[in-house]
Amino acid sequence: MPATNPRSGLTDSLTPVLDATEGREPPELAGLFVVLEGGDGSGKSTQVSELARWLRADGHDVVTTREPGGTAAGASIREVLLHGGDLAPRAEALLYAADRAHHVASVVTPALAAGRVVVCDRYVDSTLAYQGGGRGLEAGELAAISGWAAQGLVPDLTVVLDVDPALALARTDRLREAPDRLEREPLAFHAAVRERFLALAAAAPARYAVVDAAAGIDDVAQQVRVAVEPRLAATTGAA
Amino acid sequence: MPATNPRSGLTDSLTPVLDATEGREPPELAGLFVVLEGGDGSGKSTQVSELARWLRADGHDVVTTREPGGTAAGASIREVLLHGGDLAPRAEALLYAADRAHHVASVVTPALAAGRVVVCDRYVDSTLAYQGGGRGLEAGELAAISGWAAQGLVPDLTVVLDVDPALALARTDRLREAPDRLEREPLAFHAAVRERFLALAAAAPARYAVVDAAAGIDDVAQQVRVAVEPRLAATTGAA
Repeated sequence: MPATNPRSGLTDSLTPVLDATEGREPPELAGLFVVLEGGDGSGKSTQVSELARWLRADGHDVVTTREPGGTAAGASIREVLLHGGDLAPRAEALLYAADRAHHVASVVTPALAAGRVVVCDRYVDSTLAYQGGGRGLEAGELAAISGWAAQGLVPDLTVVLDVDPALALARTDRLREAPDRLEREPLAFHAAVRERFLALAAAAPARYAVVDAAAGIDDVAQQVRVAVEPRLAATTGAA
Repeated sequence: MPATNPRSGLTDSLTPVLDATEGREPPELAGLFVVLEGGDGSGKSTQVSELARWLRADGHDVVTTREPGGTAAGASIREVLLHGGDLAPRAEALLYAADRAHHVASVVTPALAAGRVVVCDRYVDSTLAYQGGGRGLEAGELAAISGWAAQGLVPDLTVVLDVDPALALARTDRLREAPDRLEREPLAFHAAVRERFLALAAAAPARYAVVDAAAGIDDVAQQVRVAVEPRLAATTGAA
């Protein structure tokens, strides 16, 4: 049995939800949901732009977006996350989940329902890698909260931009004068994050591609296109 | 079985956490945790002040606080909640949970561990009443997320300030020129919130007191003191 507070019956677990979602069916979505993941400085935002440009040139209706901060409310949440001081680990995880819940409900799901291609900078795996791999929160708890926030929506393809954290952070140093809270973490934190991304990809190879992001922008963009192209044929054809 | 997204194995439930908190023991806390709950305009903030004044005059070491917004990060979260536009219901619930996680970890638990009396304006029951009773989110899911955020911490006593929503909202109209987002909800919403507070109190009478908040400030303060006094003897004596 989960631990119960001696003062009452409230438990420090998510058990009561076990039955709450039984029989609920996620919607059928016609579009294609592609997520780019990776550590800080891995080049995700550049590659989101590159991929969107290529897809549009190929005639696709594309939405580019990001987590956290892909909505107006999300931008406010992102501010709290990056500059809100020393947050309790569970508070941090719940803020990312709140951003995700609003983003999935108001941006991603409507776009997929309309048959569009959604290219998103970070998603559930960033939560698992940063809060789980990086901060030691329990992975099952984080996955449960993220899944609830996202109403079970999983990407058709996640592309992991993989690069040595030392190289990636040197890149961000060149780009930005004031590193944010996550970028100030020690290198061991970023190494743990990288390992977590690679482990997630290894556990579900059918919906992941790992790309060598130490290469030049055009090389990386080409690797991303190679990973995305077969999904386009399969999914957009059915839309 | 919970519904599984056909695109992958991620579920729209919190099931995986079932085992995550097994065997975990909440800390033993010497202080007394009193929460004042009630609808908008029920007089909670006035009564928190009244109760704290009386407790201090009686020699107790008192912390007054609130949810949402009882910490610096929480104040930023509260801004998103009250002025962040039309939030998805799960996003709203997760923001309240994030505020709670940071508040419990950084304010409430340390004060209780130090043997202090914590008087808090709103807590878990407001989430259940507003997001559950008011917005129709599943109660079990909300309780699970709140419990996780609060690490299972439950008040020693919750005092419900009960008043007809029509009267309460007339009070807030007199006090404020610009009603916030929750206060603009129709009366039926506030009636559902009231019913939910009363149902929570009825389900666990040993740790609730329901007070008639239509009375004058001094009358209500006296009713609150009568409810709190026996807990002081029991809990503070053991500190």
